[in-house]
Amino acid sequence: VSITELEPCDVLFLGLPHGQMMNRIDEFEALADSLIDLSADFRIHDAQAFEKWYGKPHACPGRLEDFVYGIPELHRDKMKGAKHISGAGCNATATILALHPLYLAGVVESAVVEVKAGSSQGGNAVNEGSHHPERSGAVRSYKPTGHRHLGEIRQELNADNIHLSATSIEMVRGILATCHVFLNTALDEKEIWKIYRSAYGNEPFIRIVKERSGIHRYPEPKLLAGSNYCDIGFERDPHSNRLVVISAIDNLMKGAAGQAVQAFNIAQGFDETTGLEFPGLHPA
Amino acid sequence: VSITELEPCDVLFLGLPHGQMMNRIDEFEALADSLIDLSADFRIHDAQAFEKWYGKPHACPGRLEDFVYGIPELHRDKMKGAKHISGAGCNATATILALHPLYLAGVVESAVVEVKAGSSQGGNAVNEGSHHPERSGAVRSYKPTGHRHLGEIRQELNADNIHLSATSIEMVRGILATCHVFLNTALDEKEIWKIYRSAYGNEPFIRIVKERSGIHRYPEPKLLAGSNYCDIGFERDPHSNRLVVISAIDNLMKGAAGQAVQAFNIAQGFDETTGLEFPGLHPA
Amino acid sequence: VSITELEPCDVLFLGLPHGQMMNRIDEFEALADSLIDLSADFRIHDAQAFEKWYGKPHACPGRLEDFVYGIPELHRDKMKGAKHISGAGCNATATILALHPLYLAGVVESAVVEVKAGSSQGGNAVNEGSHHPERSGAVRSYKPTGHRHLGEIRQELNADNIHLSATSIEMVRGILATCHVFLNTALDEKEIWKIYRSAYGNEPFIRIVKERSGIHRYPEPKLLAGSNYCDIGFERDPHSNRLVVISAIDNLMKGAAGQAVQAFNIAQGFDETTGLEFPGLHPA
Amino acid sequence: VSITELEPCDVLFLGLPHGQMMNRIDEFEALADSLIDLSADFRIHDAQAFEKWYGKPHACPGRLEDFVYGIPELHRDKMKGAKHISGAGCNATATILALHPLYLAGVVESAVVEVKAGSSQGGNAVNEGSHHPERSGAVRSYKPTGHRHLGEIRQELNADNIHLSATSIEMVRGILATCHVFLNTALDEKEIWKIYRSAYGNEPFIRIVKERSGIHRYPEPKLLAGSNYCDIGFERDPHSNRLVVISAIDNLMKGAAGQAVQAFNIAQGFDETTGLEFPGLHPA
Repeated sequence: VSITELEPCDVLFLGLPHGQMMNRIDEFEALADSLIDLSADFRIHDAQAFEKWYGKPHACPGRLEDFVYGIPELHRDKMKGAKHISGAGCNATATILALHPLYLAGVVESAVVEVKAGSSQGGNAVNEGSHHPERSGAVRSYKPTGHRHLGEIRQELNADNIHLSATSIEMVRGILATCHVFLNTALDEKEIWKIYRSAYGNEPFIRIVKERSGIHRYPEPKLLAGSNYCDIGFERDPHSNRLVVISAIDNLMKGAAGQAVQAFNIAQGFDETTGLEFPGLHPA
Repeated sequence: VSITELEPCDVLFLGLPHGQMMNRIDEFEALADSLIDLSADFRIHDAQAFEKWYGKPHACPGRLEDFVYGIPELHRDKMKGAKHISGAGCNATATILALHPLYLAGVVESAVVEVKAGSSQGGNAVNEGSHHPERSGAVRSYKPTGHRHLGEIRQELNADNIHLSATSIEMVRGILATCHVFLNTALDEKEIWKIYRSAYGNEPFIRIVKERSGIHRYPEPKLLAGSNYCDIGFERDPHSNRLVVISAIDNLMKGAAGQAVQAFNIAQGFDETTGLEFPGLHPA
Repeated sequence: VSITELEPCDVLFLGLPHGQMMNRIDEFEALADSLIDLSADFRIHDAQAFEKWYGKPHACPGRLEDFVYGIPELHRDKMKGAKHISGAGCNATATILALHPLYLAGVVESAVVEVKAGSSQGGNAVNEGSHHPERSGAVRSYKPTGHRHLGEIRQELNADNIHLSATSIEMVRGILATCHVFLNTALDEKEIWKIYRSAYGNEPFIRIVKERSGIHRYPEPKLLAGSNYCDIGFERDPHSNRLVVISAIDNLMKGAAGQAVQAFNIAQGFDETTGLEFPGLHPA
Repeated sequence: VSITELEPCDVLFLGLPHGQMMNRIDEFEALADSLIDLSADFRIHDAQAFEKWYGKPHACPGRLEDFVYGIPELHRDKMKGAKHISGAGCNATATILALHPLYLAGVVESAVVEVKAGSSQGGNAVNEGSHHPERSGAVRSYKPTGHRHLGEIRQELNADNIHLSATSIEMVRGILATCHVFLNTALDEKEIWKIYRSAYGNEPFIRIVKERSGIHRYPEPKLLAGSNYCDIGFERDPHSNRLVVISAIDNLMKGAAGQAVQAFNIAQGFDETTGLEFPGLHPA
């Protein structure tokens, strides 16, 4: 769509390829009162950090602070009436929601996150790696180090002691983040429950999933396809100070468009869950 | 098969369910000169460690030391002529082969291993979790903590600073172990290459897989189905002291029967690769 | 659930295993004004035909005529206020909806139907064939001949010149019926369009899918997971009198519970689409 | 590879895109004594038939008769010493091998074939339809009518009473052909067995697969990945004159390179099975 074809409006959802939005922000601001940007251009608030993770300077560093980072569970108050919202990265969303309560509680010594991701994360563009005979059944280390989403994660958790790798697996939609957290204090499962309940007890799109038996003891992305939920579970390692926190989302919903709609609802004063009621399918 | 139907022979490959072999070892020793045990009963050499990981005392702790742990790359010399070999666990094999050179070189501060596993790891027995509508497309945290294979891993690497989680993914055969290694010394990629080349340069079933571009830059289990290879790759994190080591095997070959045949070949003096020549298929 | 625990109610949806409902119908009628039976027991109206396809006599043949066959597109009028509705078979639904307009128009010489089915068709019960390592990637001829749904199909199309095979493929939800129709008269694509439009033009859950280009030229079950649509497409063979009609449904929705809810809505006077609004996901 | 880089040799295997070989045959003949052409250009012997199925005239119709059609089970004698062999189409191979014995016996009234195909059939080239999020889980009618392989099938079976549709399913390698055969004479299963045994009793790469119970009662492509076998099974319809014949191959082996090597072995006087010993994997 050429921008000249767009009518002025209240809110624009923008899904440009990464790197274009920062060069065209003025054009879009002229068209709409509010922008919800799904690209990566305005997720990082600090210009130096942007350059570190994206490998080039930002085109309009003075505007970085204008955008609210798009995870409602962390920034709901700032979102109300906000004119600029930047949609969070999908792997970042799964990781941040898994770990934010623990960082807030100050109990983390360090964390290692292993993200398992589906093929829709690569977008619509066809490439050699998305060719079905190659991609089908793959367990492919696509970003063992240097994943750009780590920049947002460190910013939002306000921490450097966190590491991330991402592996593509046989799945279209979905992310499972397995977060190995090394605790700086002895916590039993009850205390961890309390931390999560206190952080997320009233959240409409976060569920703590933890069963003693059965096959769905922990979060599973396949139960969430099409839904805006982030499911979170955890298990204490009896043999060390490790806590494993597991979170699942649909990368195209809570990891992208769904969370953007949630942010839009908050910004514009609608009921936060409007349009996001689909609970997922089972079996699927 | 009832044991009374077995003829005395030179070598017995035993695939009993875990926990039975340790009660029947005398029966089998009466039948064969050499035993290759595919169960978990004789992988751990220390009786206390066995009880820690298996939750019950060993039935014949005095025999634990008699078995050679079944990874040829670590114990080839002891295997020659050995009468008792214990097949290594599949996740343990992928992890130990990935990390042994680094532990040997003394460069590891700590390690966190995330194993991605296929459904054949669960064996032949049908259960609720293996029902196709439930298992298909799953990304299921089946052992976030307390995985028994960690006992063997710590024994073989002679280290406690290592952690393991396992996740079931959509795959029948195959394991990918993503090993986050925190180094206690600055090492660049060349130095790491040297460590691996020195450890595995002459190994017939280990390949270092590391490409600068393309879709197969790192090991992939789907390329190994039916083969006895263990492929190993790595990437240095430019932003921390982390090194990510990635290893892939076919859990039914290098992770089970294939490695047992390799050990058998060594024990009996045959060419180590006999019967293990299949290189895998592509695409698949 | 034991029947003694059930409260009397207006409508009972019954999902008993095939063969039980016909022995217990009196019990359920004592409990509810209306029954919607999801088993196969009351789909066939003729006692002899029942015995032919099910291999044993019916337990209460006198009641067979009481049930309305549960496809609304064929029996909407009879459903209004009906006290007994029998849910149609999933493969039967896909086949009947694909072919009914052509049989009604009297243009069919004979038909051969190939159904591709997902693993959820086998139900919840675990069995050797549903074990993931066996079922994954299968293309399994589970009923080349003698499929029981053919009994319903012949009844509803009032025809014997139709044949059916069913093949299990890698899929959890979904059915694709490929129907090879040999025409007894020359019809071009326009005339076929007219036949389908006249039959289904006002149907809320039937869509004719036929594009000249692109990858979604014909119906695809994966687009329908969770939805109650039946998508139908067709292509005329330029080299013969064959017409290929293709229909897709979600076997758990239009092929089972969804269609039962649709029938319930009609029977009880609700809006036919109530509770059935989910349009499906893409990509998935 | 530019042709100028090729050294003269005894045999050339040529895998050019369809439509190029017929324009360049002279170049290749100048380079090698024998040609094995894997393209579709020389499968059809009749120039008019070629134009009918390929939509354009053949570039060198006078050479069509020079090529032996590449299915050894039909043309083994002509292959011995042959200088020109044309590799058969993959769907054609599965169909012809399934039906040849019945056509030879003169018992076929008509046949309808439904081929289920994997994504590797589309070749290496990436396209919108092969993009994993679109292709994964697809059950896609890619050629309901007008499939070019039908030209070869009709030629080799010397029959017009045969119809073909092809559906892409979730699979990388493999073809399952479900062939609905209407018999012109009453035949029981024993008589059908006899027809197949007489045709294929000594064939090294054909197996009749037909079990009374268990999950592998009929051929399955997933058991054949990497192997050169064609497995064939059948079931008589008790309610009609229909016989369902089911055949499975690996489209990249018996449907392409494997069968070409088999033909090469015959042409050059090697043992027919040389290089084709891999039996397939289970489970996979």
